[in-house]
Amino acid sequence: MEIIYERKINYYETDKMGVVHHANYIRYFEEARIYFIEMLGQSYKDFEDRGIIMPVLSVECSYKSSADFDDVLLIHTRLTELGGVKARFEYAAFNKKTGAKVCTGSSSHGFLDKSFKPVNIKRKYADVYESLLGSVEK
Amino acid sequence: MEIIYERKINYYETDKMGVVHHANYIRYFEEARIYFIEMLGQSYKDFEDRGIIMPVLSVECSYKSSADFDDVLLIHTRLTELGGVKARFEYAAFNKKTGAKVCTGSSSHGFLDKSFKPVNIKRKYADVYESLLGSVEK
Amino acid sequence: MEIIYERKINYYETDKMGVVHHANYIRYFEEARIYFIEMLGQSYKDFEDRGIIMPVLSVECSYKSSADFDDVLLIHTRLTELGGVKARFEYAAFNKKTGAKVCTGSSSHGFLDKSFKPVNIKRKYADVYESLLGSVEK
Amino acid sequence: MEIIYERKINYYETDKMGVVHHANYIRYFEEARIYFIEMLGQSYKDFEDRGIIMPVLSVECSYKSSADFDDVLLIHTRLTELGGVKARFEYAAFNKKTGAKVCTGSSSHGFLDKSFKPVNIKRKYADVYESLLGSVEK
Repeated sequence: MEIIYERKINYYETDKMGVVHHANYIRYFEEARIYFIEMLGQSYKDFEDRGIIMPVLSVECSYKSSADFDDVLLIHTRLTELGGVKARFEYAAFNKKTGAKVCTGSSSHGFLDKSFKPVNIKRKYADVYESLLGSVEK
Repeated sequence: MEIIYERKINYYETDKMGVVHHANYIRYFEEARIYFIEMLGQSYKDFEDRGIIMPVLSVECSYKSSADFDDVLLIHTRLTELGGVKARFEYAAFNKKTGAKVCTGSSSHGFLDKSFKPVNIKRKYADVYESLLGSVEK
Repeated sequence: MEIIYERKINYYETDKMGVVHHANYIRYFEEARIYFIEMLGQSYKDFEDRGIIMPVLSVECSYKSSADFDDVLLIHTRLTELGGVKARFEYAAFNKKTGAKVCTGSSSHGFLDKSFKPVNIKRKYADVYESLLGSVEK
Repeated sequence: MEIIYERKINYYETDKMGVVHHANYIRYFEEARIYFIEMLGQSYKDFEDRGIIMPVLSVECSYKSSADFDDVLLIHTRLTELGGVKARFEYAAFNKKTGAKVCTGSSSHGFLDKSFKPVNIKRKYADVYESLLGSVEK
């Protein structure tokens, strides 16, 4: 399953180079990931309320072309790996108007409880695990 | 007492206008305020560990001249009002090199506990209150 | 004219107090203002392309209640003053679900050219001036 | 050559997980890189004034342990590759107090002119190239 998250770029997300500052894409990936979970009928807020957090273990991004204030990004998001204690997402962002590829990236996550200890969601939150599992696309 | 906080401007704090984005000054005020508390021999981190938070009730900033990446700001900070449940800080930022006034502002704060209920620090944390009180300058 | 801008809160916009960091509202006001201009059939991007920038001269915000990740804000935005070289906007943000008032604020702006010199839009960009003027609501 | 950049963590850089939001490390890397250049007796601001920009082509970060508000990071920074049109930096951040490794990462950059066209600094800005070259450590 690939889910497309649409995001307009804010003025304050540009820098003096005149385009979006590169660190913002890491934030856009987070938005896209949370939207992905929402589109599965789940909610990252509920995850946290139930005691699951998903901190980032690693992240990477390759920049292909720049984007400007007022541009709209389409961020194609996939859950590419899922284990009981880990998940991996991949992202590809395109300029909605021009179709240009803006960047690609990925993030790896652990499932932890609120005291930052690993939680096996396959055992402890089977409903969450099953729901995520149905969307995995390598 | 007036305490001067020195702060170099980061590249990612500029926007496509070519200067620091205005919202960042609200963040610099927070840094200056936390530094002010530190210079009194206190620590905002300890405040939180002991159960006091100081959320912002209101904030304002007037912009006089712009600042650029790599400029150094000198933020003159004063605690101008202190009650058992409230405090107010005032700020004036200058360009270290040119001396130009960059902005002035203020912030009002409540003293709350971690469940966001007002705490009278004069009664419950007298050492904090006394320490802050000694620095008040209207 | 009052225009309502809807905005979901991102995870990265919270801080360790567990709610939205106060400086982010200054950014939300910018988004609301740019959306306001767009709803008039204008575009802040076009303004810049034509040589008008609208830097913030002053900003203020009063916080009434906190908002959390995943909450949706409705930001009611009005253009309350307009002159040839200045404008003022006012904002009131509400929690979409609970109706609670989250904050109110305002921002004042100058109209400048790209070299940061005042531009009288009434004279030089009459179409922009007329369009904005029709929306003023004190 | 390895240069160590020291950086205290700001309150607004945390998120509701209670620790630094992961995207901020990409910003800290930028600060460390600019500091590295400064320690060579160069200046990224001068680079831009002379017409060289160094946009990020790719970035990655692996998170080892979390850091909190008020913690101080020591970011060990090296220039690990340098060509006429490209450079690569590597970073390792440690908690100053505990010595714990917080994260490691890298960034690749192109040298471009202000119209985003590649510039060969070896040919066009030999002084910059030589200065950077002397610090390369694989």
